[in-house]
Amino acid sequence: MTETKSNQMWGGRFAAGPDAIMEAINASIGFDRRLAAQDIAGSRAHAAMLAATGILTDKDAEAIREGLLTILSEIEAGEFTFSTALEDIHMNVEARLKEIIGEPAGRLHTGRSRNDQVATDFKLWVRDQLDAADAGLTALIEALLVQAEAGADWVMPGFTHLQTAQPVTWGHHMMAYVEMFGRDLGRVRDARRRMNESPLGAAALAGTSFPINRDMTAEALGFDRPAANSLDAVSDRDFALEFLGVASISAMHLSRFAEELVIWSSAQFRFVTLSDRFSTGSSIMPQKKNPDAAELIRAKIGRIFGANVALMTVMKGLPLAYSKDMQEDKEQVFDAADNWMLALAAMEGMVRDMSANRESLAAAAGSGFSTATDLADWLVRVLGLPFREAHHVTGSLVALAESRGCDLPDLSLEDMTSVHSGITAEVFDVLGVDNSVNSRTSYGGTAPAQVRTQIARWKEILG
Amino acid sequence: MTETKSNQMWGGRFAAGPDAIMEAINASIGFDRRLAAQDIAGSRAHAAMLAATGILTDKDAEAIREGLLTILSEIEAGEFTFSTALEDIHMNVEARLKEIIGEPAGRLHTGRSRNDQVATDFKLWVRDQLDAADAGLTALIEALLVQAEAGADWVMPGFTHLQTAQPVTWGHHMMAYVEMFGRDLGRVRDARRRMNESPLGAAALAGTSFPINRDMTAEALGFDRPAANSLDAVSDRDFALEFLGVASISAMHLSRFAEELVIWSSAQFRFVTLSDRFSTGSSIMPQKKNPDAAELIRAKIGRIFGANVALMTVMKGLPLAYSKDMQEDKEQVFDAADNWMLALAAMEGMVRDMSANRESLAAAAGSGFSTATDLADWLVRVLGLPFREAHHVTGSLVALAESRGCDLPDLSLEDMTSVHSGITAEVFDVLGVDNSVNSRTSYGGTAPAQVRTQIARWKEILG
Amino acid sequence: MTETKSNQMWGGRFAAGPDAIMEAINASIGFDRRLAAQDIAGSRAHAAMLAATGILTDKDAEAIREGLLTILSEIEAGEFTFSTALEDIHMNVEARLKEIIGEPAGRLHTGRSRNDQVATDFKLWVRDQLDAADAGLTALIEALLVQAEAGADWVMPGFTHLQTAQPVTWGHHMMAYVEMFGRDLGRVRDARRRMNESPLGAAALAGTSFPINRDMTAEALGFDRPAANSLDAVSDRDFALEFLGVASISAMHLSRFAEELVIWSSAQFRFVTLSDRFSTGSSIMPQKKNPDAAELIRAKIGRIFGANVALMTVMKGLPLAYSKDMQEDKEQVFDAADNWMLALAAMEGMVRDMSANRESLAAAAGSGFSTATDLADWLVRVLGLPFREAHHVTGSLVALAESRGCDLPDLSLEDMTSVHSGITAEVFDVLGVDNSVNSRTSYGGTAPAQVRTQIARWKEILG
Amino acid sequence: MTETKSNQMWGGRFAAGPDAIMEAINASIGFDRRLAAQDIAGSRAHAAMLAATGILTDKDAEAIREGLLTILSEIEAGEFTFSTALEDIHMNVEARLKEIIGEPAGRLHTGRSRNDQVATDFKLWVRDQLDAADAGLTALIEALLVQAEAGADWVMPGFTHLQTAQPVTWGHHMMAYVEMFGRDLGRVRDARRRMNESPLGAAALAGTSFPINRDMTAEALGFDRPAANSLDAVSDRDFALEFLGVASISAMHLSRFAEELVIWSSAQFRFVTLSDRFSTGSSIMPQKKNPDAAELIRAKIGRIFGANVALMTVMKGLPLAYSKDMQEDKEQVFDAADNWMLALAAMEGMVRDMSANRESLAAAAGSGFSTATDLADWLVRVLGLPFREAHHVTGSLVALAESRGCDLPDLSLEDMTSVHSGITAEVFDVLGVDNSVNSRTSYGGTAPAQVRTQIARWKEILG
Repeated sequence: MTETKSNQMWGGRFAAGPDAIMEAINASIGFDRRLAAQDIAGSRAHAAMLAATGILTDKDAEAIREGLLTILSEIEAGEFTFSTALEDIHMNVEARLKEIIGEPAGRLHTGRSRNDQVATDFKLWVRDQLDAADAGLTALIEALLVQAEAGADWVMPGFTHLQTAQPVTWGHHMMAYVEMFGRDLGRVRDARRRMNESPLGAAALAGTSFPINRDMTAEALGFDRPAANSLDAVSDRDFALEFLGVASISAMHLSRFAEELVIWSSAQFRFVTLSDRFSTGSSIMPQKKNPDAAELIRAKIGRIFGANVALMTVMKGLPLAYSKDMQEDKEQVFDAADNWMLALAAMEGMVRDMSANRESLAAAAGSGFSTATDLADWLVRVLGLPFREAHHVTGSLVALAESRGCDLPDLSLEDMTSVHSGITAEVFDVLGVDNSVNSRTSYGGTAPAQVRTQIARWKEILG
Repeated sequence: MTETKSNQMWGGRFAAGPDAIMEAINASIGFDRRLAAQDIAGSRAHAAMLAATGILTDKDAEAIREGLLTILSEIEAGEFTFSTALEDIHMNVEARLKEIIGEPAGRLHTGRSRNDQVATDFKLWVRDQLDAADAGLTALIEALLVQAEAGADWVMPGFTHLQTAQPVTWGHHMMAYVEMFGRDLGRVRDARRRMNESPLGAAALAGTSFPINRDMTAEALGFDRPAANSLDAVSDRDFALEFLGVASISAMHLSRFAEELVIWSSAQFRFVTLSDRFSTGSSIMPQKKNPDAAELIRAKIGRIFGANVALMTVMKGLPLAYSKDMQEDKEQVFDAADNWMLALAAMEGMVRDMSANRESLAAAAGSGFSTATDLADWLVRVLGLPFREAHHVTGSLVALAESRGCDLPDLSLEDMTSVHSGITAEVFDVLGVDNSVNSRTSYGGTAPAQVRTQIARWKEILG
Repeated sequence: MTETKSNQMWGGRFAAGPDAIMEAINASIGFDRRLAAQDIAGSRAHAAMLAATGILTDKDAEAIREGLLTILSEIEAGEFTFSTALEDIHMNVEARLKEIIGEPAGRLHTGRSRNDQVATDFKLWVRDQLDAADAGLTALIEALLVQAEAGADWVMPGFTHLQTAQPVTWGHHMMAYVEMFGRDLGRVRDARRRMNESPLGAAALAGTSFPINRDMTAEALGFDRPAANSLDAVSDRDFALEFLGVASISAMHLSRFAEELVIWSSAQFRFVTLSDRFSTGSSIMPQKKNPDAAELIRAKIGRIFGANVALMTVMKGLPLAYSKDMQEDKEQVFDAADNWMLALAAMEGMVRDMSANRESLAAAAGSGFSTATDLADWLVRVLGLPFREAHHVTGSLVALAESRGCDLPDLSLEDMTSVHSGITAEVFDVLGVDNSVNSRTSYGGTAPAQVRTQIARWKEILG
Repeated sequence: MTETKSNQMWGGRFAAGPDAIMEAINASIGFDRRLAAQDIAGSRAHAAMLAATGILTDKDAEAIREGLLTILSEIEAGEFTFSTALEDIHMNVEARLKEIIGEPAGRLHTGRSRNDQVATDFKLWVRDQLDAADAGLTALIEALLVQAEAGADWVMPGFTHLQTAQPVTWGHHMMAYVEMFGRDLGRVRDARRRMNESPLGAAALAGTSFPINRDMTAEALGFDRPAANSLDAVSDRDFALEFLGVASISAMHLSRFAEELVIWSSAQFRFVTLSDRFSTGSSIMPQKKNPDAAELIRAKIGRIFGANVALMTVMKGLPLAYSKDMQEDKEQVFDAADNWMLALAAMEGMVRDMSANRESLAAAAGSGFSTATDLADWLVRVLGLPFREAHHVTGSLVALAESRGCDLPDLSLEDMTSVHSGITAEVFDVLGVDNSVNSRTSYGGTAPAQVRTQIARWKEILG
């Protein structure tokens, strides 16, 4: 098959002919060729249905279905010549089908249109990506569970405002991301369930008078049911927007984790060591490891959410049913999907490879009077002080320790009682960071036991 | 209670004191006062739990719970003086509680922190909005069903590229929007289910050593369960972003419908007449009715999706757990929710009030050779022509009619057979617009019978 | 030159080696090869300067400069093999240079770094695009001037709310877009002037101890001056963001015009006929002309502004100086620039080709009591009525005409005086649409004379 | 003046009357009251022009101008009752004017319309904000210059990837932000110049037949000239979008600096101490200073760029001339302007108050082999090694030092020559951080002398 400009399907009246600009702005084959496998699957299902309903002869349907398989092989083998003059993947495939099987090729398009065809192709593609995201998120969660299990009781600072607030455990911090990516998984599955309705058979926009069986093609393509309104079926791009929305929130989670990894691997923090595999070095400073992968993952939210903005802007104020504006949908989703999958895989790899620097984490966890709230809680719990008064007493003790240049556990009991006479030696039991994290046993708290409970719960969820 | 700047909770060390700029940028009471009811509900549930678990005496808890009800009454009556110096709704309420009940007020904050408190308040508020959106979408769908039922068989042009493509029915067009708003409803419910986990008891970020019962407060506040990771619970704003994402897609649907209403009510289209109630006039051109409500609805996608961009940008790359950046979450969600609800209500009102101009619709439906595909389908179905050949024959007949200045049904049989000899008089049965829409009986097609089936299905769904 | 993975510049310590994921996320050669010409120009200028300042021998510099020209030829001829393992365009070029000229290639990178090199390359590329946009906008304005000149006195409806408000002239409407694209031109030139500072010589971030001459390289590359702070020079992407901002506003203008063209070419409006060249047809409805190019232009604002969102999100909160996140800048700008240029060219072509349907325009201009304000102004001007009272009287006359089923000029003088006794026959002089547009001679008004004045002004501006 | 719903200007025909929903979605007085001063200034200029051109009597014009001043006083004194039923600021002012001066009030609106009136008001408001931004940016730059001057020679780490790359000076780092905010200043001024054209007199959209003098009102209001096309003048919101674009880039700069301040004030970095004035504390951890202001500034890019997205989305695809959608412009710009000004002021305050921790900075600057490139440059400069070979030798020396647990200056000459025999004792002159920064004297480099040159240049620019 040769590249040709002579075979425009809609030609005839257009004496002037489309010039280079029009071809450049109008043709989609440059990107929608990625839908080839989906296009062929959709056409094969359609042909089988046309035969089953008597609209096509079994013989024609068989020729079409075989011819389409041949084309799929050609495409997979890189032997297919895509023609810009044929505009899109649908026309490229159909024109090639005619070359291979002749006249029956012209019967394939009965009872459908490019409008429902492209919606079907694109939905199948997006559905595949949702499945890939499901797998990618699951693998990332599993990597996080390994880290969480190993470090369920390793102490580290829990930050607010990037200032040490209270000690937490490494496992607890990892499990926070498990919750986030777990919600992403829920959104992926809801989106998949919602979008899984077949546009095929909606035809141009009004349905068709051929006695087609939309349930049959829907089932063959793994859809739950046919879409219930043909106008909506061809003009709906909710599935693409919801995909981009789900991907954007997930990319935001990735950006937060990536930011932490960049900060944690700075010389000043030294909380983690990233593997060589996901860093780059410098020929001149061989000790230096730049967290390139983390930075790039941090950045991916930009293009993924940018794609969401792009498609939302395109769809704004578009009257029904199909408008050519909607051709701008695919490149955005392709790029966002590619980058989301890549970022998930890279993050999973980084998480599997990274090693926490337990000593740095523990040292940082113990500094900055991080157990002040433990002291205050003790004052409430044991001495019965009101919460606000306990905080006031604790503040005075912290100020005293700071003026001494020491930490809370370093104060003497005498120091303590000078601020509040009721304090007893028992107070020292709550001041160490290990005591602190072990005591926070409220549901979802940072205590290692709680962390392990949550790890077990997630293992069960993932099966 | 008087406005005062002297009672800063975190004061003491800050000799310099916050000046006007810091107060302006830092205080949130100017907007988070909208969370007052949620804040009080959360505190009342917390107090009851503290008593049930023995952390507070029943007497103190009762005083707190009663005092909070008093404050709620004061706020609802507009008698509460909010203080900027007290920064936020939480501190305003607590300070007033102390004035009313004295010392026990200081015990309320045991086992929680402002971080889990604000997350709880905000989640409760967003949940209320999801319920309001559920009601608003349902009412809008009901209004569309009324229009669809009345006009199940009224013909109108089905457009692609704003060019007449095929006749459709008014009911079918209305039902396309029912599908869209129906998907919005699904997203609203998924979002509500996913976000319905209680942050309360996550405390600052690490959980607490007090023997609190998070299941009890979760249940009291209508949550399905407590959030499973305290770090995540205080740093998660997925529920706000998912709300904005759902609202944005819905606002996009509204913008598409609004665009159609603006175009349809132009002098050139005259497809619908909007009610005076949702139009504005001109003192000088009293016949003129500007579709202001439709235009404003069309515009709402801007601020709603803008809010989505705003919050996504804020959350990008934010390390765990709480950062002050997150204080920027509320105004965006408040504004988006207000405008989404308003747009839903205005659209519902417009749909209920508007009247379709059946004559204009019918006249437009029949022009532009809109039944050309019906002719082509007849050639395929009756004469057995391949689809592509049938299209070619039809194109020639349309060209012939155009050269005659008439429409397809106006051609003689002789004209017809001059292009393809097999055509019989039977062909005229498919050329009228009513014949056309009646014939498109494929599932989800535009045939009145199909439209009525879908109306019945939706009535059953809505109960 | 063969594709190879063995020659990583930063290798050595990274025993594990980057695997496929890291290569996929990290390598930029897939897209930054578009900077090849700029990279070579920058390196050639740098080599000449190194020789002039005595840092390099003239012989080495000459070898380098010649070798770079050879590489440019190879790339232009499609004979250059880009290697993903060499990561980016800079390393690809340098590695090839070493193959061609040997050891002196290793001296080229003296006194610079990849950080200032990529900033220089990218700035040169963006500057070229600004120049292309300048030309594209100018050509579009010229096309609009042709339309405006031809139709300086053709009447058409001026819309508010897509409702006829007052008659305007076709030329006036075209000139509104000239003003918009004229402002775009101003923004393009301001952006070019602001960004035209050379980063070259900023080195990694701190400048260099080599006695380089940054003025010399700046001048050689057409920059106005060297950038004044090396930290800023390597971490600044303002020029890319300003480019995207300017492009976005321009794309918004294009979307407004495209929307009008879509509406105007509907069967209901028939205000313009687009050429076949920028429409697509249907094999089955050969009379149908879909405004595909206009729709695609309308959509381009999506991806262009989406790119702006993407890069702004990437840059948000990025600490100085270079972070790898910034590698995400190029693809966004490339895609936005390509699509802006394409949309400008397509719009220019459409404007040149389109023909206004004068009869439809005139008929629409005269309907809907479009000269009501002319009547009111007459009442103020001639009878001395206060503005608000004149409007009231006019409203009554419009209502009277509407009840009669006629337009304002069709009312008798008796009708007129029945509403306001002072009206004289002179009033009919202002009621026709031609009278109306001719009377609006205020500066910038719709009167043909004013339109011609503005056309002349713009011709002078464009030279 | 009492709140009233009885006086709708466009009433009459609308028997049904706007109900609560329509009022809520349609009325703008809730926000456009912020344009009161601009509205009155515009009306006063208009009245003076009407008198000068003989359209109004001097007496009427004087009454109008005095009455408007009275209204301005009432509004400034908080004594003006705004009415939602009167919809917008224009109608509120005009209705009140009628109450005060009676019949002549009805003559004010001659030769203009609400469309050009609101465009004028809004432009004047935005212009004021550009002037405020000019002042705010200038003040911030001045604060940075003070910091830069004090610390022109304080060494600190220069980061790439948040990893120490080379030593720089504090002054140099401050001056990088001076360049950024300096470019913001350039954009502010370009935007002001471009937008400074008066819409007044464009009337509804077509200009007017009254012999108005648009130059006169333009001059009175400080505009450079009248806008040249009346259709464009009423439908143009470029000035608002350009304002938002300029503000967004500036907010991005602020977010980068704020991110650095958050990181720098962490316990792990301790590079700066923020003043109490712009931090918040904790009653329980009085030593803790949370960088709340920095975090909030970091977040402001969200709402400012979100506003840009919102308005761009609103304007997308809007046909000419005025559409009600455009009423959504003001709230976005108001909110963005308020927050930009606030963020500039807060950042200026923080910069003025903050103190660099010279010891921490110096210690961090000297670690991590930060002078490795100085060593390599020495090898090139003194020994004549090719750049790439010099890097290889340096890498080996760094590896050697790392294996010894020491830094580069701690290696003996013997160690040095074991790697490359040509190295002499002279090499130690370039290895200290002070030597390093002092040597980087290329234009814009980090050498204190260069920094001081740039400070002097900026002082001259600012005058």
